[in-house]
Amino acid sequence: MYSLHPTLANDCFLLGNFPLSQLLLMNDSQYPWFILVPRRDNIREVYELSDEDQQQLNKESSFLSKILASEYTADKMNVAALGNVVAQLHIHHIVRYKTDPSWPSPIWGKLAAVPYQNVEETRNRILSLVGTTLEFAAID
Amino acid sequence: MYSLHPTLANDCFLLGNFPLSQLLLMNDSQYPWFILVPRRDNIREVYELSDEDQQQLNKESSFLSKILASEYTADKMNVAALGNVVAQLHIHHIVRYKTDPSWPSPIWGKLAAVPYQNVEETRNRILSLVGTTLEFAAID
Repeated sequence: MYSLHPTLANDCFLLGNFPLSQLLLMNDSQYPWFILVPRRDNIREVYELSDEDQQQLNKESSFLSKILASEYTADKMNVAALGNVVAQLHIHHIVRYKTDPSWPSPIWGKLAAVPYQNVEETRNRILSLVGTTLEFAAID
Repeated sequence: MYSLHPTLANDCFLLGNFPLSQLLLMNDSQYPWFILVPRRDNIREVYELSDEDQQQLNKESSFLSKILASEYTADKMNVAALGNVVAQLHIHHIVRYKTDPSWPSPIWGKLAAVPYQNVEETRNRILSLVGTTLEFAAID
């Protein structure tokens, strides 16, 4: 039975579900930082998913990356499956700017998170984008 | 016309070609660290590849991750497309151990590279694995 790892649940806002993955927003206002978590049990690595799920994950990841890059006018997207601390497979999608506080380094471990004072604007902005696909179901 | 970015060519050993991607070994003996570079022009993000190429990249990435995790008895694989310094799309595949010098942090920017004194053992080890697929062509 799939359940979101409590650390991810604690650190992120749950925005909704693609057919395979939950869409999370990391509670760090320094970067537009989203995470996909395939709703499958006991999966730590992409290759452990079925071929069909891997294709769906790629589809969801590319869709998300593309709309984020466009909407946020990214200089670069950073897409990564690390999982050294939380092993449950989760794929980071981070909009990077040449002017962001960690550029050009990867963001992990650089700066303490700055929680959102008001997450509604970001939540609504992303939901208006991904909500244009019938396959995405927002969670209130 | 595809050509490997000179920074990647300088920092890595070129091991060979999958149908889509070049396989590189990063010249840092601290980690088993491999990189896939799709042989396509002017691609910075996975979503810029055609759907067919994205599927092939996923196939090559999962194949590589799986054999690396098994052969090197990884505690975790780290798979990432960052590209903040070298924008040409390249996907890191790094074998991580709980005992490695950067664990549990991501490896980028943590420690200066320690070049291989003798890369032949690692090269031969990986080529004996990926060489079992007819689709991989080693480069001498």
